[in-house]
Amino acid sequence: MKKHPIRVIPLGGLGEVGRNMMVYQYGGEYLVVDTGLMFPENDMLGVDYIIPDFQFLLSKRQQIRGIIITHGHEDHIGAIHHVLQELNAPIYTTPLTRGLIEVKLARNGMLQKAQLNTVQAGEVIKLGPFQVEFFHVCHSIPDSVGLGIQTPAGLIVHSGDYKFDHTPVDNWPTDYAKLAEFSRRGVLALLADSTNATRPGWTPSERLVDEALDKVFSQAQGRIIIASFASLISRMQQVANAARRYGRKMAFVGTSMVDNAKMARKLGYLDVPDDTLIQVDQARNLPDSDVVLMCTGSQGEPTSILGRLSMGTYRLFDIKSGDTVVLSSHPIPGNEEAVFRTINRLFQRGAEVIYEEIAPVHVSGHASQEEIKLLLNLVRPKFVIPIHGELRHLKQHAALAMEVGVPKENITVLENGQVVELHQDHMRLAERVPASTVFVDGSGVGDVSPSIMREREALAQDGVVLVHLEVDQATGALRCPPDITSKGFIMNSEADDILSEARKRITTVAVGANGSLQKDVEQELRKYLYSEVRRSPTIFVNVSRA
Amino acid sequence: MKKHPIRVIPLGGLGEVGRNMMVYQYGGEYLVVDTGLMFPENDMLGVDYIIPDFQFLLSKRQQIRGIIITHGHEDHIGAIHHVLQELNAPIYTTPLTRGLIEVKLARNGMLQKAQLNTVQAGEVIKLGPFQVEFFHVCHSIPDSVGLGIQTPAGLIVHSGDYKFDHTPVDNWPTDYAKLAEFSRRGVLALLADSTNATRPGWTPSERLVDEALDKVFSQAQGRIIIASFASLISRMQQVANAARRYGRKMAFVGTSMVDNAKMARKLGYLDVPDDTLIQVDQARNLPDSDVVLMCTGSQGEPTSILGRLSMGTYRLFDIKSGDTVVLSSHPIPGNEEAVFRTINRLFQRGAEVIYEEIAPVHVSGHASQEEIKLLLNLVRPKFVIPIHGELRHLKQHAALAMEVGVPKENITVLENGQVVELHQDHMRLAERVPASTVFVDGSGVGDVSPSIMREREALAQDGVVLVHLEVDQATGALRCPPDITSKGFIMNSEADDILSEARKRITTVAVGANGSLQKDVEQELRKYLYSEVRRSPTIFVNVSRA
Repeated sequence: MKKHPIRVIPLGGLGEVGRNMMVYQYGGEYLVVDTGLMFPENDMLGVDYIIPDFQFLLSKRQQIRGIIITHGHEDHIGAIHHVLQELNAPIYTTPLTRGLIEVKLARNGMLQKAQLNTVQAGEVIKLGPFQVEFFHVCHSIPDSVGLGIQTPAGLIVHSGDYKFDHTPVDNWPTDYAKLAEFSRRGVLALLADSTNATRPGWTPSERLVDEALDKVFSQAQGRIIIASFASLISRMQQVANAARRYGRKMAFVGTSMVDNAKMARKLGYLDVPDDTLIQVDQARNLPDSDVVLMCTGSQGEPTSILGRLSMGTYRLFDIKSGDTVVLSSHPIPGNEEAVFRTINRLFQRGAEVIYEEIAPVHVSGHASQEEIKLLLNLVRPKFVIPIHGELRHLKQHAALAMEVGVPKENITVLENGQVVELHQDHMRLAERVPASTVFVDGSGVGDVSPSIMREREALAQDGVVLVHLEVDQATGALRCPPDITSKGFIMNSEADDILSEARKRITTVAVGANGSLQKDVEQELRKYLYSEVRRSPTIFVNVSRA
Repeated sequence: MKKHPIRVIPLGGLGEVGRNMMVYQYGGEYLVVDTGLMFPENDMLGVDYIIPDFQFLLSKRQQIRGIIITHGHEDHIGAIHHVLQELNAPIYTTPLTRGLIEVKLARNGMLQKAQLNTVQAGEVIKLGPFQVEFFHVCHSIPDSVGLGIQTPAGLIVHSGDYKFDHTPVDNWPTDYAKLAEFSRRGVLALLADSTNATRPGWTPSERLVDEALDKVFSQAQGRIIIASFASLISRMQQVANAARRYGRKMAFVGTSMVDNAKMARKLGYLDVPDDTLIQVDQARNLPDSDVVLMCTGSQGEPTSILGRLSMGTYRLFDIKSGDTVVLSSHPIPGNEEAVFRTINRLFQRGAEVIYEEIAPVHVSGHASQEEIKLLLNLVRPKFVIPIHGELRHLKQHAALAMEVGVPKENITVLENGQVVELHQDHMRLAERVPASTVFVDGSGVGDVSPSIMREREALAQDGVVLVHLEVDQATGALRCPPDITSKGFIMNSEADDILSEARKRITTVAVGANGSLQKDVEQELRKYLYSEVRRSPTIFVNVSRA
């Protein structure tokens, strides 16, 4: 049998390489790892979220042996319903991740269609030429796995998101033994998480959060409101444990929190006794000192529950003096401004606010530099391909690999869509496949292009001005003064003088114009408005002839 | 003579209290401290910068005894030309700050009008009832001062931006002796910088940056390009020193960098020997290993020199493999995304990129928690009013003051515009004065209102759709099919089906409509587009009757 090289194809979003989707290819067969989404950057106007462009897989539908999801965070499962619409391959994943996927698919009416298979960490499955071994890793959500992918051409280790936490909340450390065993078998390539590659030292244990929560619970007089991600099941567990220790009742607030908590309890990943768990309605009838609420909004999202609480627009209750609000999260880059604004607003409403900067109420779920070096030394791969990070993280991960002795030529920093071929004794950059991103806006997938966003940006910068002209077809003269309307351009109080002068100038131009009336008016108006207020609104000129 | 209370009035911008402008009042007389600008947040669409609303001072023009500028950073001097247009009071400031103000006023054609007075740290000036003593403080720009403001009602200490650096670049530490002397005289109130109040420990010395630069200079093979703020004169000095140590020639790139460096050299605040300083044109004729360039753009601004270099659109030169780029700065909250994008792009062009996260090439210019406590203990004020920070920083500063023993009732956290009266034995919240912010967009000052920004946001979210209808005045029928144009709404490839269906529906509505044609069409179109693509563009309907 002819041996093929293993081909590695990172897809996904926004400069983070292979975070949302990775593809492994052996011969003509494919294995997909993760199907996540990204949140838009601040200048991606009107975009709800972003998914990987996986069009190059469409012609390979029949050759995809499976889709493996490493863990249940949005940046790894969030595009699953979009992917399943096009590629209905069987999905393999651990029980909690499966539960989170089911919640999401049910919401999109696609649960029936999906072929879901449960795998436990430690199990091995065979998918075509890929023999995939699931091994447990610690991360900020339980039931996360990394993958040992054995192919005829060698063994690949794919870390997924991981950290080496010695005292994780679920007491299940990363599987060191399995990593060492891979190393004995000989690892052709390691593809590993680079998120914290610029962070020196060792990421603190989740246990640190317990101590911080203890301090909060022992000092708070009134209600405690804790905001986090809806998928951060281990944080839910820590809050539930603190609630029990301090005799408070706990309620989850918001659909996604409630759904995920319910599912995780059912599957045994979240242990909250019945007499600790209450509904948010019941919480309102208890003394404040007996209550802890857990909700979403730790990223400062204005439509989240915490966002609405900070603005006083949440339907069920208001923030009041005596409340202690905990943001148990780290701002995703780009969200800092929104997060800090939310914190300031909560202070303004009288709450005490505890956040990462002033107390360790959150720790990262990703390996720092010493852990990255430990993984490299445990696995001792021939080739290293940093993934899960921006270019600056991948570069730093590459530098760490060189520090532990991996030769420079055995390390490759890729961009999304760049295919790399792994041979026994060398690796080689192959072709590029299309691997940009697809913007999802409203119900439309992929119908917002960069050019649409440039138009939106222009509209956002300086607004829009509309001119309507009624021209007498016979004489070419204006039948009435030009009609000018604007939005987002200038305030009414300022507009009168400017617009009346604009009307005069347009009239003058219109008299002299012939065929190019529309263009001439637009040009004149653009010139005049820029000279007057140094702005360039989007201008529409409409000419009606009768 | 009747004793008045001292009235403290913080003005300024964007939730940072008193950062950009502070007003002190005694009797009917006023003293203004600083006149800075703020940069807009990410959702302030199309705004160039923001200045304090100082309208309440307009009726008090004759009672303003002086404007004092504590140091030359934009957030303290950037609104000076706007303020001078309305309030032409004499300005008092140290030589370097004056130099920076002159550069700015010259650019705005206002240098002749300004009454500029030079004061040295250590001097005392009398401005009406205010006897102002300037004392030296360390900050990330030389010649920074704090103020001891003696009034008949007591002594106020206003820290300005400061840190306690024992080894500053200019070897001029903060004036501990003066602070201790104030304490002996008895300080009624301390108003001090809260920027780093959430940061534990002691801010590292600027000297740390020298070591980091040493490492960069000793390892770089090719050109070194260092980005920072144009006003960071002490960083310029550090780079110039490193250039001399390593035998490189140094060029400043960009107008503001060049202007400020020239002025600072002339005034003796920047020591670069003639044989070290070159023009950027000369740099192009030297070997790469002999060159260091200093430019702006450390905040990821797309129009800055570094921003353009990262995109390959800078006119004078390109980034190439072998270049080492240093971002000597900390991202201002909200700029993280732009900064990291710039870093990734520079890596992509082949440069090595060194930034704060991976090497100490920048240190903060503001006091951390231990320094804030030191200032409190040195000054031992009766009352404490945290300023220069968001609410979350002020709250934390208040907590630190309580830690060192200031009674809770002697600490006040203010909002901008909230007047506080300081009496001998108590303080009291008085009235509020208008103290919002004024948006500057293009040449227009204050003509961008929140409602304009809401319109821009709507335009940015979903774009704009324009409908033009030609109606036969006699019959009420459409004389031709509706004309529909859009910008920023939907891609052309997707638009055809949707817009042709929209045209049909509009025609149907138009037939049945009478007086309310415009409104009916708009409503129908809004309903249809939302049901089809879940977006709500701004819709304009124009009806022409003939």
